[in-house]
Amino acid sequence: MINVTIWNEFVHEKIHDEVREVYPDGLHMALANGLGGEGFAIRTATLDQPEHGLSDEVLNSTDVLIWWGHMAHDRVSDEISQKVAQRVLDGMGLIVLHSGHFSKPFKALMGTSCDLKWREANEQEIIWCVNPSHPIAEGINGKIILEKEEMYGEFFDIPVPDELVFVSNFQGGEVFRSGCTFLRGSGKIFYFRPGHETYPTFYNPEILKVISNGVKWAYPARNVKPEFGFSEPVRSLGNVLV
Amino acid sequence: MINVTIWNEFVHEKIHDEVREVYPDGLHMALANGLGGEGFAIRTATLDQPEHGLSDEVLNSTDVLIWWGHMAHDRVSDEISQKVAQRVLDGMGLIVLHSGHFSKPFKALMGTSCDLKWREANEQEIIWCVNPSHPIAEGINGKIILEKEEMYGEFFDIPVPDELVFVSNFQGGEVFRSGCTFLRGSGKIFYFRPGHETYPTFYNPEILKVISNGVKWAYPARNVKPEFGFSEPVRSLGNVLV
Amino acid sequence: MINVTIWNEFVHEKIHDEVREVYPDGLHMALANGLGGEGFAIRTATLDQPEHGLSDEVLNSTDVLIWWGHMAHDRVSDEISQKVAQRVLDGMGLIVLHSGHFSKPFKALMGTSCDLKWREANEQEIIWCVNPSHPIAEGINGKIILEKEEMYGEFFDIPVPDELVFVSNFQGGEVFRSGCTFLRGSGKIFYFRPGHETYPTFYNPEILKVISNGVKWAYPARNVKPEFGFSEPVRSLGNVLV
Amino acid sequence: MINVTIWNEFVHEKIHDEVREVYPDGLHMALANGLGGEGFAIRTATLDQPEHGLSDEVLNSTDVLIWWGHMAHDRVSDEISQKVAQRVLDGMGLIVLHSGHFSKPFKALMGTSCDLKWREANEQEIIWCVNPSHPIAEGINGKIILEKEEMYGEFFDIPVPDELVFVSNFQGGEVFRSGCTFLRGSGKIFYFRPGHETYPTFYNPEILKVISNGVKWAYPARNVKPEFGFSEPVRSLGNVLV
Repeated sequence: MINVTIWNEFVHEKIHDEVREVYPDGLHMALANGLGGEGFAIRTATLDQPEHGLSDEVLNSTDVLIWWGHMAHDRVSDEISQKVAQRVLDGMGLIVLHSGHFSKPFKALMGTSCDLKWREANEQEIIWCVNPSHPIAEGINGKIILEKEEMYGEFFDIPVPDELVFVSNFQGGEVFRSGCTFLRGSGKIFYFRPGHETYPTFYNPEILKVISNGVKWAYPARNVKPEFGFSEPVRSLGNVLV
Repeated sequence: MINVTIWNEFVHEKIHDEVREVYPDGLHMALANGLGGEGFAIRTATLDQPEHGLSDEVLNSTDVLIWWGHMAHDRVSDEISQKVAQRVLDGMGLIVLHSGHFSKPFKALMGTSCDLKWREANEQEIIWCVNPSHPIAEGINGKIILEKEEMYGEFFDIPVPDELVFVSNFQGGEVFRSGCTFLRGSGKIFYFRPGHETYPTFYNPEILKVISNGVKWAYPARNVKPEFGFSEPVRSLGNVLV
Repeated sequence: MINVTIWNEFVHEKIHDEVREVYPDGLHMALANGLGGEGFAIRTATLDQPEHGLSDEVLNSTDVLIWWGHMAHDRVSDEISQKVAQRVLDGMGLIVLHSGHFSKPFKALMGTSCDLKWREANEQEIIWCVNPSHPIAEGINGKIILEKEEMYGEFFDIPVPDELVFVSNFQGGEVFRSGCTFLRGSGKIFYFRPGHETYPTFYNPEILKVISNGVKWAYPARNVKPEFGFSEPVRSLGNVLV
Repeated sequence: MINVTIWNEFVHEKIHDEVREVYPDGLHMALANGLGGEGFAIRTATLDQPEHGLSDEVLNSTDVLIWWGHMAHDRVSDEISQKVAQRVLDGMGLIVLHSGHFSKPFKALMGTSCDLKWREANEQEIIWCVNPSHPIAEGINGKIILEKEEMYGEFFDIPVPDELVFVSNFQGGEVFRSGCTFLRGSGKIFYFRPGHETYPTFYNPEILKVISNGVKWAYPARNVKPEFGFSEPVRSLGNVLV
């Protein structure tokens, strides 16, 4: 069983009526419900909890962490951010959603600004699969259409993804690398673009399917613990002085 | 003309006789002399200079920065490290040599531990080209043999390189991804493995050729300044409310 | 000086009035004129010439071949197609334009069907740069807008490109990986999507700039001739029996 | 259950005593036995069978094909080779072992010469994992040591692999990209270097583990059937004339 922790900053939902209408119990609860049928062991965590809900105990028992944040990235402590990034390097999977592109853990793991273009205009997004045999695209038939979403546009300042799975078309003319995977240390990261807080994106079955696929893909392989440091030769060095 | 700044921590050479014998004026001067015939405008900078020799003026007028450090990574200030990383994201090329894999700017740009296996045993390294049409391999005929070098072994905990140019074979049985390129922001990074301080590696013409090729490759293309932030639609949204 | 050969099947222009109106002397002549200011040594070749204009002498003295074909792919002989592909593996650069995705040499070098979605509907294409520091994007400011082009849509059945430089947005909702590089053998390949025969795309200065950049990028590095076959050990095998 | 077909040219074992001693029933039977505990549904096929044992019925009911060939590549018919390559593009997984690098289906899918350096000298090969979180490396602890193998050395003339999983060190000084994955069409390909016919490599539990991992990795995702050809707009083109 995969232990999934869904982290949501959970601020918009408390202070913006239009967001609360869409996600009355918070984005994290919509995700938890939406992923509930997959057999994952799901917990949630939010910014205002002690240690943002991400104690060592929680992090160490999490196989895959899902992250949504937007207006309160700065309120996530450096200490917890570093612990999250370190756990990824040690093998925990990480699914970063939408505005999580600017979260501290994601930026630290990418090493770049993670900046992009954006526009809130209720416009149509069409998410195309460019890697149909990838396990994250399993069950998706070519494309996903979202009638209203925020626009994110290129250039998206990330390292070249290890795998590009989805690319979005926006009505206003932009494109965006919407589904990107990255290996970092022993951990696997999947960035997935959609999910603005004012739209019901996280109730969409195809979006939930992709996130669920992402969780399964990012689930850490067992026995991954590379050795580092001083190392004896495998093969005799003969007359070489060590 | 390419403005190159060669940064060396310049500590070993002052306190270890065996290093000073090989590089009496410092590694940076050997590199400066070795690259002198390429027509670069070369400056050097070292740890003990004010701002480690990397003032805003120096950084802003540097096209490509070469970095060698080993025993004093921690003495490089966080402020200067961040400025270096930011300049790379803004377009400055970066050549990281050997033990610079553990330098603060490189680690920040990679987002991983950058750890590896190592051994000092005077053993032979053979550096093979696995990407013969890459400009960094220009003039190298298949392989470079170094009779004595420190061993670095896999797993090298870096992100998957954008391009793999060289792979090393060590006498004791290890392999290492020795020549790796990375795009980060608007900047290009080349990591090149050889160059332990007790060996005359930086007098080797083929090693100098690769570093020189790397400088030319990392030289920033002009007119690269991506736009970010709010963006008007390129194409009319029709009846969509913005 | 870079020796460029521009190959055009040159059939549409002879039999379709609307194409001849746009390219009265053939697409190849528009390209030759448009690239004329770059200092290349330019020749052209067409299907109906002996050996399709691609004799051994022409191929062997070509540094970079530009290829446009559409309705007569099958009329290109297997022999010449194989020679073109072999020359690429031996180091010649190749720029494949638009409907050249279905040409015999490109398909042989890719190993896939190279199929895609398409539509001729006079719709707007916006070509976005997703790799701003790439030399092929030099001088392009974020995007290129073509008011009317044929649509090509994903899934584009190519191997994962070594580098993705441009991605297109089409008015009807599709996206396409429009600028892709591939290394094959000692040769460099750049596929660039735009250029339907009924539109004046090859008079567009930005399109010509990208093609010109592509030629410079694909220009073969010197001294690339890998060795293959039986190989003596570099390092003594000691007591091992060879 | 994964339907695996193991194809072996099965010539060496019939005519070379030293090979028959190692693989008295053929390499394919050693592989079939070695993979038997994984729960795969395993069939074998060999060159001398009608249609080389690869009838349409067999190919169409094969999820993953394992291929070993060496001295009789030319005796595999073009027709069957093309069917194998097409089935890979249509989604069948393919595991190519050792000298299969020169097989017709692999070369057609790669588009390159697939040439390399080689030497038969009973020398030690150490296969290092450079991608420890990859599912194909699951259960492998850093490296695999084979006391005697044929040497394969770089440059290996393949396209840049989509993923590099293993790199080999040979006693004589060479390196080789030993574990490489490629996506082609809807199919997944894993090339794995070891397995010369005169050594008991295919009895080694770690080698069998990697091949078994490869089979599971290459098992085709369901529902992958991209659409191609003429395509109606997803989004209204408004006043644009179609």
